[in-house]
Amino acid sequence: MEILKKHACFGGVQGVYRHPSAETGTAMDFAVYLPPQAEAGGTLPVLYFLSGLTCNWENVTVKAGAQRYAAEHGLILVAPDTSPRGLDLPGEHDSYDFGSGAGFYVDATQEPWSRHYRMYSYVTQELPGLVAAEFPVDTARQGITGHSMGGHGALVCALRNPGKYRSVSAFSPIVAPSQVPWGQKALGQYLGPDRQAWRAYDATCLVETTAWDRPILIDQGTADEFLAEQLRPELLVGAAAAAGIPLNVRHQPGYDHSYYFIASFIGDHIRHHAEQLR
Amino acid sequence: MEILKKHACFGGVQGVYRHPSAETGTAMDFAVYLPPQAEAGGTLPVLYFLSGLTCNWENVTVKAGAQRYAAEHGLILVAPDTSPRGLDLPGEHDSYDFGSGAGFYVDATQEPWSRHYRMYSYVTQELPGLVAAEFPVDTARQGITGHSMGGHGALVCALRNPGKYRSVSAFSPIVAPSQVPWGQKALGQYLGPDRQAWRAYDATCLVETTAWDRPILIDQGTADEFLAEQLRPELLVGAAAAAGIPLNVRHQPGYDHSYYFIASFIGDHIRHHAEQLR
Repeated sequence: MEILKKHACFGGVQGVYRHPSAETGTAMDFAVYLPPQAEAGGTLPVLYFLSGLTCNWENVTVKAGAQRYAAEHGLILVAPDTSPRGLDLPGEHDSYDFGSGAGFYVDATQEPWSRHYRMYSYVTQELPGLVAAEFPVDTARQGITGHSMGGHGALVCALRNPGKYRSVSAFSPIVAPSQVPWGQKALGQYLGPDRQAWRAYDATCLVETTAWDRPILIDQGTADEFLAEQLRPELLVGAAAAAGIPLNVRHQPGYDHSYYFIASFIGDHIRHHAEQLR
Repeated sequence: MEILKKHACFGGVQGVYRHPSAETGTAMDFAVYLPPQAEAGGTLPVLYFLSGLTCNWENVTVKAGAQRYAAEHGLILVAPDTSPRGLDLPGEHDSYDFGSGAGFYVDATQEPWSRHYRMYSYVTQELPGLVAAEFPVDTARQGITGHSMGGHGALVCALRNPGKYRSVSAFSPIVAPSQVPWGQKALGQYLGPDRQAWRAYDATCLVETTAWDRPILIDQGTADEFLAEQLRPELLVGAAAAAGIPLNVRHQPGYDHSYYFIASFIGDHIRHHAEQLR
């Protein structure tokens, strides 16, 4: 693991790191915030933040103001990238919502994506393993959150792994990728045309069978430009209610899809995770 | 004045605006954060944030996390650009520390800069006039702060206008531009070789004669890569002590010159201004 940057921040350390990933077959960058409590020795709970389309580790690390709250609650923050980088697969860089910057947190099964686009295994297994080896993380206390495509990723990772994550939340997530254009485009190409295979990466399907039983917090801005076409939280609300999953979707009046929205509510989310991980 | 963007943020509104500036002879963009208290009617105190080399309104607006504290204290935040834009004067874009993105908050007297590079008059007069006309600002309660080149600008604006600003602070400011490479390069070209003319834009000179008598807060990271060569806060400390100006320079251990540093202490600065502007 290579250290790319280190900055003092709210009494802790904001670092950026690079490592060779076996899952993606590429170098992967990620950011870790160590709160001041890390200096005392011992281990701390960890919160993963999965970013949205076009983003990498930098957006949340620079724009969300999350470090302040992580320092308050003694949480380690980890922000991975959203896809492999440095490849040049056919069509990989042609659109903002597929390929590079748009891995959708799936393990692709279709050529030419299946060799490298393994972001599900990367964020749920390889990266947590590396983080646990390199940082003072209590692996029994892992939470996950994310924004938009990353909110989708966070929900999918948690619902499929209730034993691995103890808390989950999301900002303006794509809750039902099988039913919206962003998801249909991505899942169709990464997983192929058989929609049965998509269900493993669709939170609205997963709530039907998950063993997850802890409170889920979602914030959604009412002025979000993607709300009606791509996000459609009502689909998850209905499915979660039918399945008896404790879901709290807060509709935040006037907020859009930007990091100004995330910054406004990241404090609530970090408190949610800190309480669940206590 | 044209509205470029508006985002809900911490219960208020983060806007970005454009107007034709008489001082610079160009269109100028700036950001304004209106805290939730603005909805109650009446006027609010305002804090100007002057940015550093290569920046514009966006850096502080996106990276500092200042809106949270402004919403807590009921302060309007204004972030101007750092130079005229859209010109193509000879050499204007050749270096990061002179010309575009590097106006140094002076009124240039030398050709070809003197027609457009009038950032001192822009930030102390034209922009506050526009802001007062368009937003619910109490012009008797104006504060000013900034980072690096913008910290220099904030100190200069306050020390020269103690009747106009009631509070001042700075992050890692260039306190003595006449004595450091960044300042000598900029002041020499904007103001000419006569160093007597530079004194009006040098905080360490201005403390000798200013009527400013209110507490000045400066934060400076000890791991700042520009500390020894460009910033040299000890020069201002000595001059302020000799002049009896109440200056509090806090040396923050391990912090660098980045916005991770600013984000860590912007809360303290906004509290400082809120208390002075009460």
